[in-house]
Amino acid sequence: MIEFVVQKTDVGSDARVGTLTTAHGSIETPAFMPVGSLGAVKGIEPDDLRALGYGLILNNAYHLYLRPGHEVVAAMGGLHAFTSWPGAILTDSGGFQVFSLSKLCKVTDEGVTFQSHLDGSSHHITPERAIEIQEALGADIMMAFDECVALPSSRERIQDALKRTHQWAARCQAARRRTDQALFGIVQGGHDPELRAQAAAGIVALGFDGYAIGGLSVGEEKSVMYGMLNATVPHLPRDRPRYLMGVGMPEDLIEGAARGVDMFDCVVPTRHGRTGSLFTSTGRMVIKHAQYVRDEQPIDPACSCRVCARYSRAYLHHLFLAKEMLGVRLNTLHNLHYFAELMRGIRAAIAGGTFADFRSAFYACRMHHHADEAEASASLQARSEEVRL
Amino acid sequence: MIEFVVQKTDVGSDARVGTLTTAHGSIETPAFMPVGSLGAVKGIEPDDLRALGYGLILNNAYHLYLRPGHEVVAAMGGLHAFTSWPGAILTDSGGFQVFSLSKLCKVTDEGVTFQSHLDGSSHHITPERAIEIQEALGADIMMAFDECVALPSSRERIQDALKRTHQWAARCQAARRRTDQALFGIVQGGHDPELRAQAAAGIVALGFDGYAIGGLSVGEEKSVMYGMLNATVPHLPRDRPRYLMGVGMPEDLIEGAARGVDMFDCVVPTRHGRTGSLFTSTGRMVIKHAQYVRDEQPIDPACSCRVCARYSRAYLHHLFLAKEMLGVRLNTLHNLHYFAELMRGIRAAIAGGTFADFRSAFYACRMHHHADEAEASASLQARSEEVRL
Repeated sequence: MIEFVVQKTDVGSDARVGTLTTAHGSIETPAFMPVGSLGAVKGIEPDDLRALGYGLILNNAYHLYLRPGHEVVAAMGGLHAFTSWPGAILTDSGGFQVFSLSKLCKVTDEGVTFQSHLDGSSHHITPERAIEIQEALGADIMMAFDECVALPSSRERIQDALKRTHQWAARCQAARRRTDQALFGIVQGGHDPELRAQAAAGIVALGFDGYAIGGLSVGEEKSVMYGMLNATVPHLPRDRPRYLMGVGMPEDLIEGAARGVDMFDCVVPTRHGRTGSLFTSTGRMVIKHAQYVRDEQPIDPACSCRVCARYSRAYLHHLFLAKEMLGVRLNTLHNLHYFAELMRGIRAAIAGGTFADFRSAFYACRMHHHADEAEASASLQARSEEVRL
Repeated sequence: MIEFVVQKTDVGSDARVGTLTTAHGSIETPAFMPVGSLGAVKGIEPDDLRALGYGLILNNAYHLYLRPGHEVVAAMGGLHAFTSWPGAILTDSGGFQVFSLSKLCKVTDEGVTFQSHLDGSSHHITPERAIEIQEALGADIMMAFDECVALPSSRERIQDALKRTHQWAARCQAARRRTDQALFGIVQGGHDPELRAQAAAGIVALGFDGYAIGGLSVGEEKSVMYGMLNATVPHLPRDRPRYLMGVGMPEDLIEGAARGVDMFDCVVPTRHGRTGSLFTSTGRMVIKHAQYVRDEQPIDPACSCRVCARYSRAYLHHLFLAKEMLGVRLNTLHNLHYFAELMRGIRAAIAGGTFADFRSAFYACRMHHHADEAEASASLQARSEEVRL
């Protein structure tokens, strides 16, 4: 299955460095997982991910269940063989996608009935079915099937979903047939610190190979998200990996690590890459801006990635305006390198006892770039509809 | 500038192998040039092209003139620096695009006025301007600015265009300021063997570094195209490279080589890749077909490319249906490898005195795959609108 060893814990925070060992390699934590929803990180090959230093990626069970179907993936030898990714894989359970992407979603204690966002076909997913699907996909780490409520919701509604999520978590455990995959439980609880603490206790009592914190980064203020981490992480066992789902921005990775999180996943580096929003040591750069038309510099002169070693802002600006697919690939490669390097920096700082300095230096570099950050967010919003591939 | 040396001529045909030496490397001929219209072969990096064995690519002056503008490219150090492509580059003059892509195109003896297909802005291109643009772009090989008539046209119309094309060719020569770029003349003449012969004589009399055959592969029967090559090539000097523009399919490369052509360019491997039409040793494969859902084989078991070494038909089928950008890249890499390998095979056969056998074996392999070929063409037609990136 998996092994997890905490190598060192920071003195001034709850940050820790560790090693997560799977049948498909060892991953140093805190680790960021690129997202390959449909069995591919958009435009990026496994060889690229390896070269960037990634050893663990996320695939979406919901998407792969709908297309090509988990039986097809199983018949092709599972996700590793099907996608030619030799590293470790985590599959989410589909819970979040069922509630966020599908249509006409109906929840009962038994499970969820929903319509596919692809063709409107009707599907029924229970905790048992979610495990069956994930066992067929064959990732190293599976996730329990949880109920995700839209926030804000009433305390009663959140408690109701929590109760169901915990019953489902136990049913997920009971439904397992394979013994070579790990299963993580998910702590929900909205934005209520008490419910988060209760949820953590309830999930931990069931005993999982790792613990995820779900339902965050869904539009709330960062202070709220960090508050929920403060309310949750202390209730999770120290010797098991902690995974903050769907998060996030660079500052969220630093703040999550500071609060004892070991794993993260997010579409940010890839989606921002597609929309021309590039991460640099001093903040975000909106490559479509006219100021880059004749700019011979790389995206970030301080960056050591192969994109910055080869291509100018002027060329990337041109590729973006021309909607050339190569631009999407290069932007994504750069952003993925930034995230990999950020995590390397976080780990080295924790290991070297300089995490507090690392955290301060990170914010100091960005102080005078807030304006561009705001625009980068607006640009992402505007382009996310436009760029589909 | 460039040097061209014919190394060996085939006994049973007009095929020859040669070496074209530029300031950016030597290219073995017959050679195929991938097309990077906007300064990038769609989805493919220069490193990829190098790894595939390509040493010469084509960029489109028309597209780059409109965006980002030739002055921008010049300010960034020319196309090689701007696109980070260390190999040789040929730019077409824009003639073909002006007549095929732009709107409201008006021709006089002086030049062409047209509206940009991007924003409707009005532009005026003369032979002098075409050279100015291409000198700013800085390719190793420039093309003369020619008039391309829609076919079929009357003999008078074609003769009229020929006369203008020859006047323009002379004006292109006179307009040159740089001495480090080669300039090729273009032989037009529609589908009339006599006009083709006259055109060749006229262009050769002007004296160019190489000679292109234009206006073919625009919808005519293959026998007509091959007939035009038969009518043209014998009138071109043996010691200069001959370039068949915008061609073509694998059989066209073999037939062109057999008739003494040294250079080809075409969007076929890249565009077919984007539309899921894959070239194999036995013909074309339409990867969207349901028969590949659970097919663990590579695209072509006989292929040595990195895509065939890593990915199954089942995975590529899935990526295609899911419209995943990675699928476009992998399909394109495979097709570009097929074309590079085909050219290597042609050259080796000519050099080894086995070209006739090579040609027969090529057709023998495809005999029982004609049905799939027809469908591949239909598929390309249907998808070419759908896939834009």
